[in-house]
Amino acid sequence: MQENQTKNNRAIGIFDSGFGGLTVMSAISKLLPKENLIYFGDSAHVPYGSKSKKVVTEFSTDISKFLVKKNVKMIVIACNTASAYSLKTLKKVIKVPIIGVIEAGSVVALQNTKNKKVGVIGTEGTVKSNAYAKEIKKHNKKINCFSKACPLFVPLVEEGWNSGKITEDIISVYLKELVDKKIDTIILGCTHYPLLKDTIKKVIGKNINIIDSATAVATAVKNLLEKNNLLKEKGKGRYEFYVSDDPEKFKKLGSKFFNNKINKVTKVEL
Amino acid sequence: MQENQTKNNRAIGIFDSGFGGLTVMSAISKLLPKENLIYFGDSAHVPYGSKSKKVVTEFSTDISKFLVKKNVKMIVIACNTASAYSLKTLKKVIKVPIIGVIEAGSVVALQNTKNKKVGVIGTEGTVKSNAYAKEIKKHNKKINCFSKACPLFVPLVEEGWNSGKITEDIISVYLKELVDKKIDTIILGCTHYPLLKDTIKKVIGKNINIIDSATAVATAVKNLLEKNNLLKEKGKGRYEFYVSDDPEKFKKLGSKFFNNKINKVTKVEL
Repeated sequence: MQENQTKNNRAIGIFDSGFGGLTVMSAISKLLPKENLIYFGDSAHVPYGSKSKKVVTEFSTDISKFLVKKNVKMIVIACNTASAYSLKTLKKVIKVPIIGVIEAGSVVALQNTKNKKVGVIGTEGTVKSNAYAKEIKKHNKKINCFSKACPLFVPLVEEGWNSGKITEDIISVYLKELVDKKIDTIILGCTHYPLLKDTIKKVIGKNINIIDSATAVATAVKNLLEKNNLLKEKGKGRYEFYVSDDPEKFKKLGSKFFNNKINKVTKVEL
Repeated sequence: MQENQTKNNRAIGIFDSGFGGLTVMSAISKLLPKENLIYFGDSAHVPYGSKSKKVVTEFSTDISKFLVKKNVKMIVIACNTASAYSLKTLKKVIKVPIIGVIEAGSVVALQNTKNKKVGVIGTEGTVKSNAYAKEIKKHNKKINCFSKACPLFVPLVEEGWNSGKITEDIISVYLKELVDKKIDTIILGCTHYPLLKDTIKKVIGKNINIIDSATAVATAVKNLLEKNNLLKEKGKGRYEFYVSDDPEKFKKLGSKFFNNKINKVTKVEL
């Protein structure tokens, strides 16, 4: 029992190309407040969305190996592009359980759609990979998926322009073709997008379900830990943050994405 | 003489974090069509604009060493962020003449302003470095410089949204405070921005001089080569392209920025 708790006290490793994955960390910390969490933001290589599968998989592998050295009990890929491109490879190379945001978001979308028309928005990489559609079709071949890359959403969020006329206009341009397809559910397939959720709702209306993959993946993490008897049972979780570029900037801007204060950030070279 | 021409036939090395520097390469190829040019686009690390001085200088040093191995006769830093952060360090480490876009753009702005109020727009890194203002003040302490980071301009250009209502609105938000300061000259302190030049002119009016640092740096390259007796005198220039990520994407999108077709792009690991 004692031995089991020592094993279970190990942290959950979470990584993303930058800040976006902090929305996933937020959701996990709310659902599982006892868990210790270690976050890695690859700020020297951000963004992943426009980069190749090969290079994103190289970055993801290096980070996962770093997290394993930190003795994590599982890894969450809190980045849609890295999940789309690298999950398969990482599952072969990394010895702890590893989950991505895409499977989790797909399951929740399947539970929500009634007319079987699902929209997916994300970075160029996520959309090009077609990963959400593949995942959804695995569960139900009758679902129609329509996807659209929205490359301006990440810089808009990083600029803090989460609402306002310009942001609404940009959302309207990107999402028009999905709305025209009569989708009843849309997956926010990028961990930055939850910060645009209210404005997206304002533009596309209340009748379309908006699936936030951050919340979905938190539930998936809980299920996986329960199933493997790995839940930490006592005490409040501790949080550690690592980045590959300027820790001060991460500390300052990270608070937009994370619901807690970020006290200490350490720069590491992989 | 023969020996001199062999020496002078060596290429000019040009580098940037991605595609933007191709606007500089375009300007150089127009002004100096006989010169051989080697371009390096650091697409695995793009963008530099939001990254730290330390990490940008590391990237720039690795690239410059690669270009020196390619036997270039001089290096042009075709990226404002890298020029602002790394030129000093590179001048110490690299043995061939090296120039950045900032000095060149500053000189032309000085020649153009009448009311001594100059605006500078660029990435977060370029603006934070205050490099244009420092350079301009070196020549004339009486000039007032007003700068503004415009982080959405690069993604707008990369999305191909060079004109239209949304782009005009974004330009208007960013440039309002500079226009209010009654600047008569504005430096486009980012190599992506020349593609927005017409729309910027439409928004801020014809009375403000727009200084495109790509054209300015081409003139500076010509002057430097003439001064050092390094001009190539015969034949048409040949162009080589290297990148640190997907060469196919570079080939396809690079043509937006470069006035010639890009035939062959080679991926290298530094």
